[in-house]
Amino acid sequence: MKIAFRGEPGAYSEQAVFEYFGEGEPVSCDSFDDIFDAVTSRECDAGIVPIENTLAGSIHQNYDLLMRNNLFIVGEYHLRVRHCLIVNPGAKMEQIRMVYSHPQALRQCADYLRRHKMKPEEGIDTAGSVKALKKLGALDMASIASRRAAEIYGMEILEEGIEDNPENYTRFLVVQREPTIPKGEAKTSLVFTLNNVPGALVNALNLFALRGINLTKIESRPLHGRPWEYLFYVDLDCSAQDARANEALALLSESTPTLRVLGSYPRFRPNIRT
Amino acid sequence: MKIAFRGEPGAYSEQAVFEYFGEGEPVSCDSFDDIFDAVTSRECDAGIVPIENTLAGSIHQNYDLLMRNNLFIVGEYHLRVRHCLIVNPGAKMEQIRMVYSHPQALRQCADYLRRHKMKPEEGIDTAGSVKALKKLGALDMASIASRRAAEIYGMEILEEGIEDNPENYTRFLVVQREPTIPKGEAKTSLVFTLNNVPGALVNALNLFALRGINLTKIESRPLHGRPWEYLFYVDLDCSAQDARANEALALLSESTPTLRVLGSYPRFRPNIRT
Repeated sequence: MKIAFRGEPGAYSEQAVFEYFGEGEPVSCDSFDDIFDAVTSRECDAGIVPIENTLAGSIHQNYDLLMRNNLFIVGEYHLRVRHCLIVNPGAKMEQIRMVYSHPQALRQCADYLRRHKMKPEEGIDTAGSVKALKKLGALDMASIASRRAAEIYGMEILEEGIEDNPENYTRFLVVQREPTIPKGEAKTSLVFTLNNVPGALVNALNLFALRGINLTKIESRPLHGRPWEYLFYVDLDCSAQDARANEALALLSESTPTLRVLGSYPRFRPNIRT
Repeated sequence: MKIAFRGEPGAYSEQAVFEYFGEGEPVSCDSFDDIFDAVTSRECDAGIVPIENTLAGSIHQNYDLLMRNNLFIVGEYHLRVRHCLIVNPGAKMEQIRMVYSHPQALRQCADYLRRHKMKPEEGIDTAGSVKALKKLGALDMASIASRRAAEIYGMEILEEGIEDNPENYTRFLVVQREPTIPKGEAKTSLVFTLNNVPGALVNALNLFALRGINLTKIESRPLHGRPWEYLFYVDLDCSAQDARANEALALLSESTPTLRVLGSYPRFRPNIRT
């Protein structure tokens, strides 16, 4: 089974592939667009994309890609992101002046960098910045990436767990060409637009609330060509096959211009592989 | 009156200052943080920050800054963003291979750049990229920025209105140290957290819906240290002084751990200066 992820080997997304799938071949992609293309074209069997981080928030580009492509969400995974300060072998803490990594990783370690008077420098991804640093051979620079990235490129870890807040998790979604029917505790992701009338959003959300269905996430994105109107992405805490959800979705589809169920999938539970 | 904005002279934010305030002295800042600092420290009388764009979506960093600082929203402005392809005098269309600008401006012109086989190159801001291009003197590069940026730096405009979608507006918020009491049509922005119980979000939103108050925007941001819990930012279509809003806010404050009214302000109306 081939699973598309974004970044170089050693990226956090690759780690999510290993932890979620256990086995399978991770396939490195240059962009999130490429992940969706690889799965759509059958080059890969599945793709894994980060959708939100507990410190940085949602990765909105991937919400847009879910809408633009015709793949289904079949799973979710919560990865604990633990950042390492990575250097060329021999480099010492007091030498480091500049730290190169993905902007989100730099932001998650902002206090640490300020405390150590290290200047952040933005790169395209975490593992890729380790690869670039190795090539450069500089002893006054460091990267921020995973333990595995340091190991793959034969680099040294000066300190582990340098993120400012330990509650640093990234939620990944697994996408495939066909939907799945989850057993046990499930979630459903949907996206819809609204008629431009007062109360439209609350009326839509009430369809679920009145049936005892809880919303675990809501996110809005602009509708292109329709200033100040939005697409709404909502996660429900049950399967779309659930009778209550089925009824609410039928009613919602009658009252909204667009409704798409992006998929129902097993709810993530720590230490239980789905 | 001194008004803090982010970017170099010629930035779209500076244009918003001119259009919203009519007169007053725009003060250039390096970051959004600096805008909030400049107003808090009384160095400036007001600040203007972009909060959402009709193509790119919300600028989440500024939602975080509204929460972290103790300023009030006193106004909003919708700026039509019209991008120009700007070059050093004498450069011809067919010479341009690379285009340097803010990532959001590049994304808003992505189709145009693809069509003309021009490679996008990310810079820190639009007007700043024009300044940098002038210094460089290159004839095979262009920048994307406002007409005013081209004029300030004595550069040439090869084409105007190159954005892929003409419905390209940025909504700005005006912040000051003291709240205002708007007359006429108003909006109110608030931020709250929720107790972690089913239906909490819908119950909160229903407090407004049941009183005929419409929500014009909803946005969620992660709560640091509390994985998968969120801060909710909501805009209402009336003033907090309105009796219905007053009642709804009183009830909401009883049922939420945190509630802050970020400000009530006159609703933006085209061609009417508030």
